[in-house]
Amino acid sequence: MTDITTVVHNYIAMWNETTPEDRRAIIAETFADDASYLDPLQAGDGRAGIDAMVAAAQAQFPGLRFELSDGPDNHHDRVRFAWRLVADGGSEPVAAGVDFATVAGDGRLRDVTGFLEPVG
Amino acid sequence: MTDITTVVHNYIAMWNETTPEDRRAIIAETFADDASYLDPLQAGDGRAGIDAMVAAAQAQFPGLRFELSDGPDNHHDRVRFAWRLVADGGSEPVAAGVDFATVAGDGRLRDVTGFLEPVG
Repeated sequence: MTDITTVVHNYIAMWNETTPEDRRAIIAETFADDASYLDPLQAGDGRAGIDAMVAAAQAQFPGLRFELSDGPDNHHDRVRFAWRLVADGGSEPVAAGVDFATVAGDGRLRDVTGFLEPVG
Repeated sequence: MTDITTVVHNYIAMWNETTPEDRRAIIAETFADDASYLDPLQAGDGRAGIDAMVAAAQAQFPGLRFELSDGPDNHHDRVRFAWRLVADGGSEPVAAGVDFATVAGDGRLRDVTGFLEPVG
């Protein structure tokens, strides 16, 4: 059982981890076997699908870094948190959003939905 | 198929509808058969459970009115929106929150999760 704060910090770390082996290790710790991710622009089913999605995002937007900006706020088996995407050395976010997720019995994320916030 | 903006406005109207027959009619239009609701303080399973939950909330907090304060923002089969609870004639909210939901194939809400925002 991993506490939700650790899981959410690991989730953010996953988006920043560009070494495939290390990223997959984070994904195994962070997501349930049957996990999925869906936001307006991308989707991933299962750990392999999520890994491929994150790798594609990193390739498309190099030099950007995800940060947790609010939360996690959780109750029962539900959690939400806010994030922003910043350029290395930059202060203004280039993207931001809120993620909602359900949490499996062992504390890992099951279904993650991302929404985008306006920036700039 | 009901559009998501109508569904979300009906959802807010449900919280304000104190006539049981009218409230249940709104619930039938708004929620899928297998819908559920969960926030930090209350839960309802199925349309009857949601109706009982809303009736209990109305009895506990008379004279308060729900308003949509942001959204709906939706993509795929997911939606989020923000609400506030105001006293009749009041301007400062006494409570506020964000709801996240999945949407059934016919456009009605399936699983709704509420989170509370700080107010005051």
